[in-house]
Amino acid sequence: MSLVAVGTVAFDDIETPFGRAEKVIGGACTYIALAASCFVQPVRIVSVVGGDFPEETLELLKNRGVDLDGLQRRPGEKSFFWAGKYYRDLNTRDTLDTQLNVLADFDPVLPPAYREPEFLMLGNLTPMVQMRVLEQLERRPKLIAMDTMNFWMNTAMSDLLQVLKMVDVLTINDEEARQLSGEYSLVKAARVIHQMGPRFLIIKKGEHGALLFQGEEVFFAPALPLADVVDPTGAGDTFAGGFMGWLASTGDISMPNMRRAVVYGSAMASFCVEKFSVERLQEVTPEMIHIRIKQFADLVHFKL
Amino acid sequence: MSLVAVGTVAFDDIETPFGRAEKVIGGACTYIALAASCFVQPVRIVSVVGGDFPEETLELLKNRGVDLDGLQRRPGEKSFFWAGKYYRDLNTRDTLDTQLNVLADFDPVLPPAYREPEFLMLGNLTPMVQMRVLEQLERRPKLIAMDTMNFWMNTAMSDLLQVLKMVDVLTINDEEARQLSGEYSLVKAARVIHQMGPRFLIIKKGEHGALLFQGEEVFFAPALPLADVVDPTGAGDTFAGGFMGWLASTGDISMPNMRRAVVYGSAMASFCVEKFSVERLQEVTPEMIHIRIKQFADLVHFKL
Repeated sequence: MSLVAVGTVAFDDIETPFGRAEKVIGGACTYIALAASCFVQPVRIVSVVGGDFPEETLELLKNRGVDLDGLQRRPGEKSFFWAGKYYRDLNTRDTLDTQLNVLADFDPVLPPAYREPEFLMLGNLTPMVQMRVLEQLERRPKLIAMDTMNFWMNTAMSDLLQVLKMVDVLTINDEEARQLSGEYSLVKAARVIHQMGPRFLIIKKGEHGALLFQGEEVFFAPALPLADVVDPTGAGDTFAGGFMGWLASTGDISMPNMRRAVVYGSAMASFCVEKFSVERLQEVTPEMIHIRIKQFADLVHFKL
Repeated sequence: MSLVAVGTVAFDDIETPFGRAEKVIGGACTYIALAASCFVQPVRIVSVVGGDFPEETLELLKNRGVDLDGLQRRPGEKSFFWAGKYYRDLNTRDTLDTQLNVLADFDPVLPPAYREPEFLMLGNLTPMVQMRVLEQLERRPKLIAMDTMNFWMNTAMSDLLQVLKMVDVLTINDEEARQLSGEYSLVKAARVIHQMGPRFLIIKKGEHGALLFQGEEVFFAPALPLADVVDPTGAGDTFAGGFMGWLASTGDISMPNMRRAVVYGSAMASFCVEKFSVERLQEVTPEMIHIRIKQFADLVHFKL
């Protein structure tokens, strides 16, 4: 089934305890698309880049089954840029620099072929931009998922609440779930957030795994314990991409399949963090995914 | 099969964001014994209390199947006392007061019936005291588990390393595993700690669950997402008690049963945190455990 993904395509400078990477490919939409395209093709992306964005990277995305018709290019301008530094635990990071550039006045335009997707992933962006995408849809998708962050809760809460009413799945981290709901317990936070609109809530806890809530039903998928985590950038977006890619490839949004989708998302995220930028995601094959999914199954397996 | 548990029996003052409890029953051995006695009886405890310790609490322990023959009583002295305050996340706490009292010169003495246990749980104590218990054994138990903490790594590392050589299972939290091994990755930490002696390593991550490592095999059990967590005191000890109680009741230390034991430990810990002190543990019935184990199974269930 068709999948549209909206978000940033960008450059990152990344520093982790294990090394540095300068002006590497980043952006939520890039990670989402590369992960999702392992399950469903084409992945139609809605984003914007400047004239500085390398043609060969766009070729690479095309070769992985990403449809670039919704990617705006602005020759005289610069792409979105983010610089961040991770600390020893890799769960905390400082943003060192953010240059919006082409993103500052980004107005997403959906090409005709994009306006009736069955699955839509709204990557982390200004809530108003996410709304602009929803306004251009000619039919309600089977499932709309969105990501957001604490920054929008602090600066654009009423817009955010408007978008939340219109989506089915919200993916946020544990601290954001607490901030959004005003509840410390994630079980209580989920109840509050369900009331805001999303009937599915995914709380991403980084190395501590992910929780899926639907009503009073809860599913938990651990993160795979890895010997070497090199760069966590994009892990959450990769998770979302794997999750939505799996759902779009099966067309099944029942809870048993949503549980499976969370595991596929976690598996994709476990690849993402093994190398800098999108390097590892480009190497992933169906067989590698298959092996990793079995590792997830074994990790939590017990018999009563 | 027989189980001996060593550790503190004490008083606690506890402050959490949800309330206060003063001079309530605490101590690692108390939690271990109450949890383990849900699976195997008697649980033979080795500990020490002062004359201030209430007779009715000792009666209560007896009624739950705890054998007090190894509990020393010192009429003119005071019991071990700990006061702590938890912060909003319940994962961090400050120790406000520690009064060793009877624990200061505690020399554990194993009654004859205690000297050939099949399962032995060494609760968190001075490594030398743990060693004194091992010296009195007349036969090597089928399985020896020990708990320890960062304090002993900072103050008695060489003693600790001696004890580690003699045990099968080590239970510590994630920060302690990192400190003990010098490795940030828990996968690498496990490899280092296996070399120190314990062939099984359990890393307790509080609300983020628990990992069991044996060689390159890893099992993960999440913590049950709870709407109300009131007091995390003793959750780690309760986990250890449930874990060892299950193993002692089945006599099976194969990895499939160790996985099951981790789930039983997690289930017992999930009860512990629902009320202050040992209050909730006293209410637990086999049926309540059964229901909770099913919740754990459902929480991680997915079908490929």
